Amino acid sequence: MKDLEFFFNRCSQIVDAELDKLIPSAATQPARLYEAIRWSVFAGGKRFRPALCLAVGNAFGADEKKLLSTASAIEMIHTYSLIHDDLPAMDNDDLRRGRATCHVKFDEATAILAGDILQTLAFQAIAKDALISDKIRVKLIAELAGSAAKMVDGQRLDLDGEGKTVPIEDLEKIHQNKTGALISAAARSGALIAEASEKELEAITNYASKLGLLFQITDDLLDVTQTTETLGKTAGKDERAEKATYPSIYGIEETRKLAEKVHVEAVGELDELEKPTDILREIAGFILNRKA
Amino acid sequence: MKDLEFFFNRCSQIVDAELDKLIPSAATQPARLYEAIRWSVFAGGKRFRPALCLAVGNAFGADEKKLLSTASAIEMIHTYSLIHDDLPAMDNDDLRRGRATCHVKFDEATAILAGDILQTLAFQAIAKDALISDKIRVKLIAELAGSAAKMVDGQRLDLDGEGKTVPIEDLEKIHQNKTGALISAAARSGALIAEASEKELEAITNYASKLGLLFQITDDLLDVTQTTETLGKTAGKDERAEKATYPSIYGIEETRKLAEKVHVEAVGELDELEKPTDILREIAGFILNRKA
Repeated sequence: MKDLEFFFNRCSQIVDAELDKLIPSAATQPARLYEAIRWSVFAGGKRFRPALCLAVGNAFGADEKKLLSTASAIEMIHTYSLIHDDLPAMDNDDLRRGRATCHVKFDEATAILAGDILQTLAFQAIAKDALISDKIRVKLIAELAGSAAKMVDGQRLDLDGEGKTVPIEDLEKIHQNKTGALISAAARSGALIAEASEKELEAITNYASKLGLLFQITDDLLDVTQTTETLGKTAGKDERAEKATYPSIYGIEETRKLAEKVHVEAVGELDELEKPTDILREIAGFILNRKA
Repeated sequence: MKDLEFFFNRCSQIVDAELDKLIPSAATQPARLYEAIRWSVFAGGKRFRPALCLAVGNAFGADEKKLLSTASAIEMIHTYSLIHDDLPAMDNDDLRRGRATCHVKFDEATAILAGDILQTLAFQAIAKDALISDKIRVKLIAELAGSAAKMVDGQRLDLDGEGKTVPIEDLEKIHQNKTGALISAAARSGALIAEASEKELEAITNYASKLGLLFQITDDLLDVTQTTETLGKTAGKDERAEKATYPSIYGIEETRKLAEKVHVEAVGELDELEKPTDILREIAGFILNRKA
């Protein structure tokens, strides 16, 4: 896991440097808006989605410079969704990435606008990246938009499900939309930038789909097994919101077994690829064993 | 003005048909979300921005089919901004386009998500339009994103200015961002799709800039001179919010004179163009004399 730790650290550094270039400075008018955006973006997130995009791009031999704007755009979409999901009218949460949520630190209007403009800046970043051909930029924007739309569907479905007994198929659909789609877009974008073949793209899509499921299962586990302090976000939230989760349906032990099964399936999808997939395999292991 | 009325009606029809194709049906799950989007999008808006995009595109000889997705995307961005601006944390308004605002008819969470996904669908619509070359799609997305970012800046500046004495230069900057940028993007997009020359694009940019200013001046006038019923949105709002407006600074009569002066300047920008600009001139006249 030492290689992976090194890889994640390096990703965070280069993606943060790119985000710093793409997001107007905190001195830009209206300053309160850009302070708020930077508060939420530079809050020490793990940068898992950008790292996945970079890892896939690297595996397929893409020029790393071509991956940075898209990896950063994906993080901007992710952060916008966190800011809006935390709003009082949605999940009403006051802790995120170990610090006050955007609307608590600033105010609701600013948080709504910060999320709105982050989404805009994400699409702008790709549209303006002259290192990538027009043809691929258009594909990347369509890919990211498709996943961003699914993410919103998932959030609405998730809110609909609160306090209800949700069948397991519906639960999976919610997560595929809410979490899986953007994780899939991150992996697929790396492959698109590297101009991977259709067959390779399919393998990456299947891997990402399993990885997204694994991510959600372990997210549900962490919510019941970890403290708020370790997570940097409110723990035990799902139970209080009476949300259906894997542990609430299967229990903790069975959920752990399910996670292990899905992990095996995810790395199995990489077997067909004649590419250096070590980091992608380690990422799946990292998600299986993560503590936050 | 009969030609213009015919032109506006035709634009509404073809843009509404395109929006109906681009936005998932109200039966799509999560249904509450798509019902809410359709409630706000199909509320009988004037479709001024799409009409401007079509009018410029027509003047420069663009194939009309190539204009539809972009014209509709601009309307989606406009509608998303209205939904979010009306939220309780922002302008807290309950009437828009003559009917209940999105969060009043549905709920706040749904209104936030409806605005979010409308922005996504706007960029997706252009990215996926195979009738337009990749090169121009990328330009259009960058153009629309640039204006959407300015719009958010403008809304934050506008909220900052409430209850304060705002100098006229700041007021103009707010409006250039909040209203002018998207109007400019609408006009410029039509020219980009038609592959207008740099010089032509510059003339259209200047025209659109004056048109945006004229739009805001008459908007301020309507807010103090018209009824809520005529406007289809709450009248007298600016005064109650203690917002600086042209009438509050110059008085109604001087503001009318200013509008006339800006109208002359706007149509003057078209004189250099050797293109059929009749409809563009009539649009400026329509904005000068509008009653809602």
